[in-house]
Amino acid sequence: MSRNILLTLRYDGSGYHGWQLQNNALTVQQKMNEAVNAVFHEDVNVCGCSRTDTGVHANMFCCSFRTNKEIAVERIPDAVNYYLPKDVSVYGARLVPQSFHARFSCIGKEYLYQIYNDRYRNPFFEQRALLYPYYLDETLLNREAQSFLGKHDFSGFCSAGSEVIDRIRTIRSVGVSREDNVVTLRISGDGFLYNMVRIIVGTLISVNEGKIPQGSIPEIIDSRDRLRAGITAPAQGLYLNKVFYNGEDRT
Amino acid sequence: MSRNILLTLRYDGSGYHGWQLQNNALTVQQKMNEAVNAVFHEDVNVCGCSRTDTGVHANMFCCSFRTNKEIAVERIPDAVNYYLPKDVSVYGARLVPQSFHARFSCIGKEYLYQIYNDRYRNPFFEQRALLYPYYLDETLLNREAQSFLGKHDFSGFCSAGSEVIDRIRTIRSVGVSREDNVVTLRISGDGFLYNMVRIIVGTLISVNEGKIPQGSIPEIIDSRDRLRAGITAPAQGLYLNKVFYNGEDRT
Repeated sequence: MSRNILLTLRYDGSGYHGWQLQNNALTVQQKMNEAVNAVFHEDVNVCGCSRTDTGVHANMFCCSFRTNKEIAVERIPDAVNYYLPKDVSVYGARLVPQSFHARFSCIGKEYLYQIYNDRYRNPFFEQRALLYPYYLDETLLNREAQSFLGKHDFSGFCSAGSEVIDRIRTIRSVGVSREDNVVTLRISGDGFLYNMVRIIVGTLISVNEGKIPQGSIPEIIDSRDRLRAGITAPAQGLYLNKVFYNGEDRT
Repeated sequence: MSRNILLTLRYDGSGYHGWQLQNNALTVQQKMNEAVNAVFHEDVNVCGCSRTDTGVHANMFCCSFRTNKEIAVERIPDAVNYYLPKDVSVYGARLVPQSFHARFSCIGKEYLYQIYNDRYRNPFFEQRALLYPYYLDETLLNREAQSFLGKHDFSGFCSAGSEVIDRIRTIRSVGVSREDNVVTLRISGDGFLYNMVRIIVGTLISVNEGKIPQGSIPEIIDSRDRLRAGITAPAQGLYLNKVFYNGEDRT
């Protein structure tokens, strides 16, 4: 019987048009397929835990594939990394149950959004954070962000073009903190709509700028009106940070 | 009378053959000269606080130049940044006394050396840290590193090819610490010989590996024998982090 194998990886998304295979653009999934097939010599198509947009990064991303080859699981990361470019790196591999599916078995995710809050750009954050030159009050942002906690219909925090019908999601934890010039939003939940984290960040920045009144986020959520929320913050600040699976599937 | 202007900048050194101008290789000084001259339309050659090697980074680097043009000092960083590539960024500019010299007025520097200590490479540290896959004991390294403190003849910690005659330097502070998978050496002193920080790191790693006995660093320093110290650690982990000037010249 074929084995079902789960890989965990990181990638710097700067050079990619997101995860998902595309005909005319370079994606991380394409690079993973090429590397896995170079090792296993089977025509596998790895299945990812989610899509990510162009320029979005991952500190943790999960994908799975089936194989009939008998390569020892603990040898897989080095073998696959050998064929991967330097901006993608596998750091875990393990056997998962036959029923496991990288996307449908996922019970939650955590994202980070990183803002470099300084007057001048920093080469070390180039393509890896939003550069925001005006003062951000992380205490205010953290307080306002608590309004996203819990179960809500997040229709107002979803970009047009999404075909998802059920737009109810539960945010389990959210916080904004600062370390020197870096302000980070950390948010986890059972799932996220298209561009949801980036719209949440855009909305918090609008509150910081006084364009959206303090305390009005609950009302904006309730309105389910995309036009009342803030802009979609740029992709380069966003990192998929954790992917959660249930019980035996836990990563 | 011309003004003497000091710029502070950061750069990701991955794409450069160090700071110092070269005939057939791209350097940071060349990029700075081009940008400053695009703003000031004078044929200036900026004077740097030190050389850095190919691939070495700077969180802080200082350079100075003279100009007869009357551009307001506070407008200089944005003006110069406009002409700089994304991997170099000026974040400070100020008037300094006529006697000020970016290199000769410098009374000390601080360097960081960053090691990504994990079994697998991390795309976000690519070209920005040494990847070291075996366990580093940062408590041991920190204790051993204290032997470098104080005034010593560091001839054993200087690469061949240096023309410097006086090899006595004073280390004012040194420490090794860990944050998750990142082990960082922080060292400051009145000056550093060619490759000195990188040889110090190589030596500490040799102690960690048991190739150099614990407690023997004082003896290795005293021997002034380059062959008794460890290898020169790679450039990509090294960051010039602070540049110190005296009194009114202070940055």
